[in-house]
Amino acid sequence: MTDISSCASASTVRRPDVLSESSRRGAEGPARRERDLLGEVTLPPGALWGVHTQRACENFPISGTPVGAFAELVEALVTVKRAAARANLELGYLDAQRARAIDAACARILADPAYRAHFVVDAMQGGAGTSTNMNANEVIANVALEVLGQKPGDYAFIHPNDHVNMAQSTNDVYPTALRLGLWLAVDPLVAALEALAAALGDRADAFATILKVGRTQLRDAVPMTLGQEFRAFQTAIRTEINSLKTHARAFGQISLGGTAIGTGLNTDPRYAGAAVAQLRELTGRPLSSAPDLIEATSDVGVFVLFSGVLKRLALKLSKMSSDLRLLSSGPRAGLGEIVLPAVQAGSSIMPGKVNPVIPEAVNQVAYLVAGHDLTVTMCADGGQLQLNAFEPMIGYCLFSSISTLRAAINILTTRCVAGITADTARCQHLSDINIGIVTALVPVLGYDRCAAIAKRALAEQRTVVDLIVEEKYLSREELATLLRPEALTRPNLHGQAG
Amino acid sequence: MTDISSCASASTVRRPDVLSESSRRGAEGPARRERDLLGEVTLPPGALWGVHTQRACENFPISGTPVGAFAELVEALVTVKRAAARANLELGYLDAQRARAIDAACARILADPAYRAHFVVDAMQGGAGTSTNMNANEVIANVALEVLGQKPGDYAFIHPNDHVNMAQSTNDVYPTALRLGLWLAVDPLVAALEALAAALGDRADAFATILKVGRTQLRDAVPMTLGQEFRAFQTAIRTEINSLKTHARAFGQISLGGTAIGTGLNTDPRYAGAAVAQLRELTGRPLSSAPDLIEATSDVGVFVLFSGVLKRLALKLSKMSSDLRLLSSGPRAGLGEIVLPAVQAGSSIMPGKVNPVIPEAVNQVAYLVAGHDLTVTMCADGGQLQLNAFEPMIGYCLFSSISTLRAAINILTTRCVAGITADTARCQHLSDINIGIVTALVPVLGYDRCAAIAKRALAEQRTVVDLIVEEKYLSREELATLLRPEALTRPNLHGQAG
Amino acid sequence: MTDISSCASASTVRRPDVLSESSRRGAEGPARRERDLLGEVTLPPGALWGVHTQRACENFPISGTPVGAFAELVEALVTVKRAAARANLELGYLDAQRARAIDAACARILADPAYRAHFVVDAMQGGAGTSTNMNANEVIANVALEVLGQKPGDYAFIHPNDHVNMAQSTNDVYPTALRLGLWLAVDPLVAALEALAAALGDRADAFATILKVGRTQLRDAVPMTLGQEFRAFQTAIRTEINSLKTHARAFGQISLGGTAIGTGLNTDPRYAGAAVAQLRELTGRPLSSAPDLIEATSDVGVFVLFSGVLKRLALKLSKMSSDLRLLSSGPRAGLGEIVLPAVQAGSSIMPGKVNPVIPEAVNQVAYLVAGHDLTVTMCADGGQLQLNAFEPMIGYCLFSSISTLRAAINILTTRCVAGITADTARCQHLSDINIGIVTALVPVLGYDRCAAIAKRALAEQRTVVDLIVEEKYLSREELATLLRPEALTRPNLHGQAG
Amino acid sequence: MTDISSCASASTVRRPDVLSESSRRGAEGPARRERDLLGEVTLPPGALWGVHTQRACENFPISGTPVGAFAELVEALVTVKRAAARANLELGYLDAQRARAIDAACARILADPAYRAHFVVDAMQGGAGTSTNMNANEVIANVALEVLGQKPGDYAFIHPNDHVNMAQSTNDVYPTALRLGLWLAVDPLVAALEALAAALGDRADAFATILKVGRTQLRDAVPMTLGQEFRAFQTAIRTEINSLKTHARAFGQISLGGTAIGTGLNTDPRYAGAAVAQLRELTGRPLSSAPDLIEATSDVGVFVLFSGVLKRLALKLSKMSSDLRLLSSGPRAGLGEIVLPAVQAGSSIMPGKVNPVIPEAVNQVAYLVAGHDLTVTMCADGGQLQLNAFEPMIGYCLFSSISTLRAAINILTTRCVAGITADTARCQHLSDINIGIVTALVPVLGYDRCAAIAKRALAEQRTVVDLIVEEKYLSREELATLLRPEALTRPNLHGQAG
Repeated sequence: MTDISSCASASTVRRPDVLSESSRRGAEGPARRERDLLGEVTLPPGALWGVHTQRACENFPISGTPVGAFAELVEALVTVKRAAARANLELGYLDAQRARAIDAACARILADPAYRAHFVVDAMQGGAGTSTNMNANEVIANVALEVLGQKPGDYAFIHPNDHVNMAQSTNDVYPTALRLGLWLAVDPLVAALEALAAALGDRADAFATILKVGRTQLRDAVPMTLGQEFRAFQTAIRTEINSLKTHARAFGQISLGGTAIGTGLNTDPRYAGAAVAQLRELTGRPLSSAPDLIEATSDVGVFVLFSGVLKRLALKLSKMSSDLRLLSSGPRAGLGEIVLPAVQAGSSIMPGKVNPVIPEAVNQVAYLVAGHDLTVTMCADGGQLQLNAFEPMIGYCLFSSISTLRAAINILTTRCVAGITADTARCQHLSDINIGIVTALVPVLGYDRCAAIAKRALAEQRTVVDLIVEEKYLSREELATLLRPEALTRPNLHGQAG
Repeated sequence: MTDISSCASASTVRRPDVLSESSRRGAEGPARRERDLLGEVTLPPGALWGVHTQRACENFPISGTPVGAFAELVEALVTVKRAAARANLELGYLDAQRARAIDAACARILADPAYRAHFVVDAMQGGAGTSTNMNANEVIANVALEVLGQKPGDYAFIHPNDHVNMAQSTNDVYPTALRLGLWLAVDPLVAALEALAAALGDRADAFATILKVGRTQLRDAVPMTLGQEFRAFQTAIRTEINSLKTHARAFGQISLGGTAIGTGLNTDPRYAGAAVAQLRELTGRPLSSAPDLIEATSDVGVFVLFSGVLKRLALKLSKMSSDLRLLSSGPRAGLGEIVLPAVQAGSSIMPGKVNPVIPEAVNQVAYLVAGHDLTVTMCADGGQLQLNAFEPMIGYCLFSSISTLRAAINILTTRCVAGITADTARCQHLSDINIGIVTALVPVLGYDRCAAIAKRALAEQRTVVDLIVEEKYLSREELATLLRPEALTRPNLHGQAG
Repeated sequence: MTDISSCASASTVRRPDVLSESSRRGAEGPARRERDLLGEVTLPPGALWGVHTQRACENFPISGTPVGAFAELVEALVTVKRAAARANLELGYLDAQRARAIDAACARILADPAYRAHFVVDAMQGGAGTSTNMNANEVIANVALEVLGQKPGDYAFIHPNDHVNMAQSTNDVYPTALRLGLWLAVDPLVAALEALAAALGDRADAFATILKVGRTQLRDAVPMTLGQEFRAFQTAIRTEINSLKTHARAFGQISLGGTAIGTGLNTDPRYAGAAVAQLRELTGRPLSSAPDLIEATSDVGVFVLFSGVLKRLALKLSKMSSDLRLLSSGPRAGLGEIVLPAVQAGSSIMPGKVNPVIPEAVNQVAYLVAGHDLTVTMCADGGQLQLNAFEPMIGYCLFSSISTLRAAINILTTRCVAGITADTARCQHLSDINIGIVTALVPVLGYDRCAAIAKRALAEQRTVVDLIVEEKYLSREELATLLRPEALTRPNLHGQAG
Repeated sequence: MTDISSCASASTVRRPDVLSESSRRGAEGPARRERDLLGEVTLPPGALWGVHTQRACENFPISGTPVGAFAELVEALVTVKRAAARANLELGYLDAQRARAIDAACARILADPAYRAHFVVDAMQGGAGTSTNMNANEVIANVALEVLGQKPGDYAFIHPNDHVNMAQSTNDVYPTALRLGLWLAVDPLVAALEALAAALGDRADAFATILKVGRTQLRDAVPMTLGQEFRAFQTAIRTEINSLKTHARAFGQISLGGTAIGTGLNTDPRYAGAAVAQLRELTGRPLSSAPDLIEATSDVGVFVLFSGVLKRLALKLSKMSSDLRLLSSGPRAGLGEIVLPAVQAGSSIMPGKVNPVIPEAVNQVAYLVAGHDLTVTMCADGGQLQLNAFEPMIGYCLFSSISTLRAAINILTTRCVAGITADTARCQHLSDINIGIVTALVPVLGYDRCAAIAKRALAEQRTVVDLIVEEKYLSREELATLLRPEALTRPNLHGQAG
């Protein structure tokens, strides 16, 4: 009996949809057998992977998340292999038939997501990515054999190591694929942020004239508009978009061609340049060779910093989500300045309760990303001599952070921000009773009289305006002019105009 | 058209095996429709969940890991529901027919893992666990309807909220289920550790007489046996087993009966006691009510501390794995004292290279657990007033940490430790040339002469023994007696015997 | 020229008060000179330390915080040395005169805090604590020479290594002193928490009858009293007091006698037992030998777990501080249920603004402690083979966490909690308009009618009570009975009474 | 009696040198008294601070580290105040006499480090930096009074708030000073790194021709030179230098002029521009106004990212230090390829032992920095609405991280790297017996024959070269050519040459 799932069974059983039996091409037919130095293994029918992948599946039944769950990593790895094959053809090391078959195989895999079901190695693995690289080599070889009309496993025609992996080592190919894959994954993340920024900008426009209390240290401070508050959220997101784009460019410096430790042993001296050029052409991205391939082979600094960039984004989203929860708190006994859209019933026991579930989800994702940043940190610290063996976990964390952030941003945009409404009356009421407004009168009345007014207003539960009129410091008309919203909230512009 | 996967599609598409279409009971037949205050939704054919679950699926397409992926959480939650139903029957609030149907439904779900496919809400969710609780209420209600021969969705007979959730709030049920579920999950983790401890003990016995160099700060220090080194690993693991068992007992203090904020509003004053008693009987575990239910409702301290306990275990495993990698380094240009079993080919480019892939995987899992501990920390810090809304992520992290640790421990035991062999000759050789052995002669020769010998040995590349004989400080026979392995490595026992 | 500060100058220049020139005994007189294998060094006049300490000062000008800043560490280390001297006397290895001189020297140092000025080595140091141990050996030796009427540096009488350090290695003495010192430091931390718990209890009593809105997910939920809210804070702190006491007991298992790597090389087989017994007697604490001294020598698990315990305490304090800031937010445009004492002016620009500066300080200290926990984690992970070389930083973090927590708790108690007052009228007002109160009527009116009332109340800006009376569901009198505060907030007790 | 230390006494008593009594100007004379709304306080004789500072000292006795310990923060804050005074003069709000007095006071403070003794507020404080700002206002006012020949405390002439703090709020001044101070602190950090890079480059040159075994995953891999290994260290450091410089530029975008919440309330519309221009001129740095001052007022993203930059630097240093410890392990039973300079005796119990204490210190500092990064993360997450109240702890962590990193780098350079020597013979010996060298023969002999040779070499304890000669695959001469060091370690260059 077929038992395909055995090659991804794990503690918490999670698998990509594409791994379902029906979606895997050629799942019918007899099981194949392959050998390596450790002996023979049986592969499930239809499997396009080989012995090394199979052993890795058995060695690492850890997370249940196969490498195939990270679409951009698969895309990047297959593209790197394709570039290598083209470079080997160009330099005359790989014959045209094999090179074309490998190229066609890569094209097929890139075109059809169903092939990702064959990238079955657990994303959490030892071996510095060797198993992921082997998985790619074997799948590409078998698809190339398909292209040539050969049977899977007939590696005499196309060999996973000798041909697909030619002039490569996991130690240069895998980190290159991680970099490229992450760069690919940044694009949809940025797109999600663009949509969020647009939604925030839309709300900022809608709320432009709503006066409200600005708060520092959770205490009533001086006036602002609700539009300014949302504009600040938008500014924060725009900053992150720029930050992501800027920092992602660092992924463009790669170590392809360094092979085992960066010396490029066993490669033609022209190979590194040729392979990087092919990859540049295939991806359309400005890739270049790292200046010190030995350093680049063991260095994971680019991942550490990018993890920090993702963490900063996460913290911005978390702060905004916390603010949205605060501002919408109530409905009666909270701040209650805004209303978040209701997306599901809140409580079975409390009728009518609606909770800020979307921002809450975003906060939690942010904390997951911060946790992943720590994992990346400890993995980075574990690098030894000419390699960092913990890159698979670094990759897992970064790809997971990106995908959960993207999902969180999407729901924040569509299920929360886009539908936020203001409680204008409440904003106005709180502004009217805000004692902090007295700050704006300091230039006219002086600090000491203002402080006395503030103290009395608090003690007597009255408004600053009433007390000032009562004391005849200023008339209601004068106050109306001094406390015009535009004067309070955009003094710079106001002043410049005046 | 069936579109079951829509209710768990996510950024990184991961789902439990049990979620596959074929495994879901009754996937045939027409789609159901359900309503709530927000409107009507369509449920996939065969779905045992309802409108609230469906909305949550759409609201939280975040991790792709449904709640059903955590078997112990589902088991705990269903058991809590069962206990509540029994308590409500006992106190006369739930009629016997309904109570029995709910009880039978819970029994069915607990008996058949296939039902976990209906716990489809994403494990990463806002709402403080409300959606998970709703998912359980709806599935149990529909299975109870099955029991009664009714159709799914006919909630007039058995209502998810009115009957299944009777006298409960997410705010007491969900944290209780998290505690119980984690406690359940500790058992197999402990079992995995017991097996590891046994394997380490076996190696300690096998290596009991192999003399080797003890090292501090990576510098050659004084002698020990390889058996002592593995015994220390075993001791470390035994300590963790005790620690896990001890700290897991804290999960036994629960807030069931506190309902919304711990005041127990809308419950019979006897309810909390009755529900806890029922749960105690169902689980056979020493559960008790927290003394201050209001505090217990918002407090997540037990999760924070247990996360720390898991992190300590992770660090012990990481330290051991790093040591195994160090001790097996080489084979020629490293320490080379032990040999780890080869479980897969190391490198395609370097013939014959075998890497310590299993310990490397363990290190990485340890760092993931440390990252999760940080996520738990930040979630804990986010508690506000009468609730912590971030418990779902706390649960995700802790269950994931336990499951990946368990998987890592299992492969460490079976694919690494059990097959470790010693390079006795190398251990002996390094012992013979170790300068640090001179420490043992300080009581006889004095510190100064020993220091001079040590210095000369290093400079002249000779052994301490040769130099001492040459200097006629001691004869070879005297040295043989003084430097007997047992005298060097177990001086206390040796001394006591003498 | 006096140049005492040279031996603690550092990047950020921080030193204990006791290090000031005037406070150091015998700062007058000529500079001493001492030698080791690396050559000769000049010691500042009055210095009671020696060459090894001096070199360490020059090697580690890192934090500016000398070991002497941690009073409990000095106390513990000196007490361990004293116990060792007594054990060596008892076993006949140290003659009575020397033993008595060392004993007396330890007593002097323990009695007079001014001696801490001579523990000058930077708390952040390499060498696994060797420099701290050497510092103690040298100071004790020189004070013992004082006791004997000899000059500092005349080590023929009392030698830092041969006599003070007899039968010891840094590797057993230093971790033992860390454990004991931390245990000592826990006592005042617990005392600070007891005072905080008392202050919270006092406030809980004072606020016992003040009805207020309970909030979950920052949304208005069901009623409680302000007293219950503060009682929950008190419960949380009481839990932490127990947790600290319980977990600190683990510091009682020590590795004294294990010497270099735990084998006890070069010690009398009776020594470990004798030394532990002496230390037990000197400290009055239930100390015992670790069962596996080799494991105990490299293991730092007790520090990792205790760091987690401190982090949990920190998070409880942080959550409470965040709640205090939320509850006191306003004064007009926030929740405003409580008023924190004003301890300093808030803002120069905003007259009358008072900020929650004490809770803000507590939050920040909590985050420092969480950061230290991570540092401890990474240090723990860095243990290799028979030792963890990073214990000095572990010690720095834990002692710093304890001292800053203690300071934070003290100001929280005395400058904030003790002076908190309630805004009873506001609490009552918010309770009156709280829609969530409808939850309490579900058993009488049913969920559906309650949900409709809730919806209308929100839309029409009216109270639940008014609408119910208007609808003639219940009379005002009936409602008054059903919504009695005691029925709402202590239903269990209420029910039991009824 | 003078009791100056009361205003900085804390849990762990640490103070800057400059705080010593003798160094404080004018410590003689009577105590002053000052009042605020909360009442009167007594200031120590000679104190240049006032009532707000004094209250803050009493409120925050937390870390014992006063703000004055961070020289660059004081410099930045005073310079910001100076720029504000100049802008206020320029715009006509401050009269020339007062403006010149404030300017002169700032100049005095910047010129004489002894004034830092009056920045006594604890670096860990609540209030979002208000107390630090107040401390600066008061000290500058009193020094300005000195300039004018007035007595301290005669604020009618120069008032801390009205004149020194004119047109400013803590909320724009403090974050601006943090940014500028950190930027100032980066310069000496970069200088320290430049020296380290130079020392590494020097070693790389010295070791350029020493052939050694490259290692991946702690296993013998293919050849490289020791020079290449040190060159890679240098490359890593050079990357960090660039990273620091690049990222520090982000500190140039400031919110000066935004006052309380970024709206610039109570400032002349020309003020923000004028103040930034003055500050630009005073510092010579390209400062500019943030485009959205409201967002900039609450945003701490620049600190989060820079903390990540420091963490990456720390991890590079940690990895290098771990490598240095590994490579120097032994002397007999380790890798032993390099020898670190002996800077202090290693062990009292083990004669002749020398430990890698400098790299160990660097590792620990790196972990402290990682911990601080977490503290910064949690502080950042705590921002609420228009402000982040936790900036003082962010500042503490970043300044401490920079200063400890700088100290660690300095000792790494001067006490370790500069004196490293190679054990050329050992490097050569390990190269000779390295089986991995067979990789270089794969192109000639094929993978299969190489794998067989590798297996036999390991089993029979022979060298690859001997076996190949024995098998007559190649002659010794052919092998000598193929295995020339330059061919093995710089194949690219070699190939290009050939």
